[in-house]
Amino acid sequence: MSPFTGSAAPTPDWRHLRVDLTDGVATVTLARPDKLNALTFEAYADLRDLLAELSRSRSVRALVLAGEGRGFCSGGDVEEIIGATLSMDTAQLLDFNRMTGQVVRAVRECPFPVIAALHGVAAGAGAVLALAADFRVADPTARFAFLFTRVGLSGGDMGAAYLLPRVVGLGHATRLLMLGEPVRAPEAERIGLISELTDEGRAEEAARSLARRLADGPALAYAQTKALLTAELDMPLAAAVELDAATQALLMNGEDYAEFHTAFTQKRPPKWRGR
Amino acid sequence: MSPFTGSAAPTPDWRHLRVDLTDGVATVTLARPDKLNALTFEAYADLRDLLAELSRSRSVRALVLAGEGRGFCSGGDVEEIIGATLSMDTAQLLDFNRMTGQVVRAVRECPFPVIAALHGVAAGAGAVLALAADFRVADPTARFAFLFTRVGLSGGDMGAAYLLPRVVGLGHATRLLMLGEPVRAPEAERIGLISELTDEGRAEEAARSLARRLADGPALAYAQTKALLTAELDMPLAAAVELDAATQALLMNGEDYAEFHTAFTQKRPPKWRGR
Amino acid sequence: MSPFTGSAAPTPDWRHLRVDLTDGVATVTLARPDKLNALTFEAYADLRDLLAELSRSRSVRALVLAGEGRGFCSGGDVEEIIGATLSMDTAQLLDFNRMTGQVVRAVRECPFPVIAALHGVAAGAGAVLALAADFRVADPTARFAFLFTRVGLSGGDMGAAYLLPRVVGLGHATRLLMLGEPVRAPEAERIGLISELTDEGRAEEAARSLARRLADGPALAYAQTKALLTAELDMPLAAAVELDAATQALLMNGEDYAEFHTAFTQKRPPKWRGR
Repeated sequence: MSPFTGSAAPTPDWRHLRVDLTDGVATVTLARPDKLNALTFEAYADLRDLLAELSRSRSVRALVLAGEGRGFCSGGDVEEIIGATLSMDTAQLLDFNRMTGQVVRAVRECPFPVIAALHGVAAGAGAVLALAADFRVADPTARFAFLFTRVGLSGGDMGAAYLLPRVVGLGHATRLLMLGEPVRAPEAERIGLISELTDEGRAEEAARSLARRLADGPALAYAQTKALLTAELDMPLAAAVELDAATQALLMNGEDYAEFHTAFTQKRPPKWRGR
Repeated sequence: MSPFTGSAAPTPDWRHLRVDLTDGVATVTLARPDKLNALTFEAYADLRDLLAELSRSRSVRALVLAGEGRGFCSGGDVEEIIGATLSMDTAQLLDFNRMTGQVVRAVRECPFPVIAALHGVAAGAGAVLALAADFRVADPTARFAFLFTRVGLSGGDMGAAYLLPRVVGLGHATRLLMLGEPVRAPEAERIGLISELTDEGRAEEAARSLARRLADGPALAYAQTKALLTAELDMPLAAAVELDAATQALLMNGEDYAEFHTAFTQKRPPKWRGR
Repeated sequence: MSPFTGSAAPTPDWRHLRVDLTDGVATVTLARPDKLNALTFEAYADLRDLLAELSRSRSVRALVLAGEGRGFCSGGDVEEIIGATLSMDTAQLLDFNRMTGQVVRAVRECPFPVIAALHGVAAGAGAVLALAADFRVADPTARFAFLFTRVGLSGGDMGAAYLLPRVVGLGHATRLLMLGEPVRAPEAERIGLISELTDEGRAEEAARSLARRLADGPALAYAQTKALLTAELDMPLAAAVELDAATQALLMNGEDYAEFHTAFTQKRPPKWRGR
């Protein structure tokens, strides 16, 4: 256990998500298949708090985010969310929208790679959750739809107007966020929105396999790679180069770097410790 | 009329551009077809002032920018602009170059989507105008050429060195701005420089149709999507997520969001008000 | 000679690189073919100092960076670098990693375009050197591998986590930097990592030809285009547009711009002076 563990006990049971943790790989499953895994207030809150809790622990080295049933996630629930927000006051509306943004920040800032396993629909908030992940492992049925303008809202929701141009370029991002039209797997792959395209029905298996590989590898090096990719989007080159230098100097004092050298010298594969 | 209308009367007649405003859709046509719509000092100034005027009014919800004749726009007029700048003093040169940059900022910052309808050549300043638009609807004859180095100037003109890497990536942008070679429609589509490729001769029709759809839709949501896409290129993730939250809270108090919910409940299409 | 020449004499002989300067085109060759041009401490230091020296002189208008033998560069030498860093103290580790970052900054900030001529492997630091260049001219044998995590280090090394997302987008960049897998020429071209794909064995020839063209052209305009592309990645739009305006006003006072106009009027090709 980390020496930086506070008094708050780990949550024994997440009620609005299915959570599994096996040997360094967390799997978080949106499990409301009769509603295409539509998100409720409680599911957003669980995602926010779960990611914070997992980020504080040292037990997770990779996380798979998947959806049960016919698709990944159809986004915010029209009845439970849109209906409810119509009677909220301004402070409550801000609270809600800040919460959804905090989920995206938590995905970008947690100290382990997040792999979205995608099949069927990833719409609205579901599309942004997938977008915030480090890897999007998708099968040919996957489709993205940034539906926000279709309900009268801004296409820039939960950081989508920040992230999408940085993934697919400003031209495609404008079209996708403005019009809310579905992007099917072939186009998504062509424009850089998919990290790995699998056979049909194999996205979750491939995502777990990638997570396993990352968790068994030099996990601290992966975590730092993610942290630098996230931070350096918001930094000038000179600062980025300085951050890289400090990070590499740190990791060169780490166990895995020494282990690589020993293994290389002994002509054997390294035994990564993730430190 | 907006309560924020100052004393300046609308310009009754734009002399260096053709301007039409029909039911929320503005169409601005570069109409100097014998010169491939080469831009003059007066045309730049009209574009700058027209966009400012349209931005202050509430009457425009989408704008089509098109060129009459054989192409979209061949850029600054060699005789009228290059020749004239050779006898300008430093302050005048700055004034001119600031004006052209202001046109690009106005295209990016006006509170409605701008759709460039492209056929034939979009060269020099014409290529940057197209680049600054939110959508580039192009037919197969369209070609872009960032010609600036070919006349001895910097490829970074009117924000091109800012915008192009954010649309097509730094590698392609360097090649295009440094060498000034033409990018024909197939390559432009491949690298993300075209939003919609139409049949030959149909770009303007398709652009108008898209503008109509945007003007008839949740126009305030589109305007905010554009504003966030523009602003969040220059913001860190945390700030972007906060801006999104405030924007969605605002729009959740708007008429269109409530109308969406009512229409959804009544199983009918929404009647968007653009508010 | 530039009036801004200090007392330090030019280095008569670069021992760890092969350097040629012919008529405005510098060619820097990594020439340790028996080690696939693996970089040593001395080679990094020579690259850093050579680029600084060439940047101060007025004699270079384009630079080709090539590798002798079977590939471009296999990155930092495992024995000479990884082994040695294992016994360095923290200050030395920082010094080393800052030096490699300074090489990348020098490539991005030198006042002439840098063209990487790529064949075979460009791995680790070799991949980042290629990435930092303005043009990547590659033959079909070229492959990139950002190997850092494979030795237990961060994929963000020498600015790679800054540069790669800006060249190929965040999705591809995450995959490449996190996993360190090879990217072969067809994929590299598809995602925008290659500027020009040549026939096998012709990358260096094509790179020299491009360098010749750039050196014979309006070299100051090219240098400013590069400077703006580099700087405007780190600037908001409004500042970028202002920088463009000042740059163009400056170049409109330059010799090449006037020469273009004269040549155009006389219907002859311009004789560029690079000023």
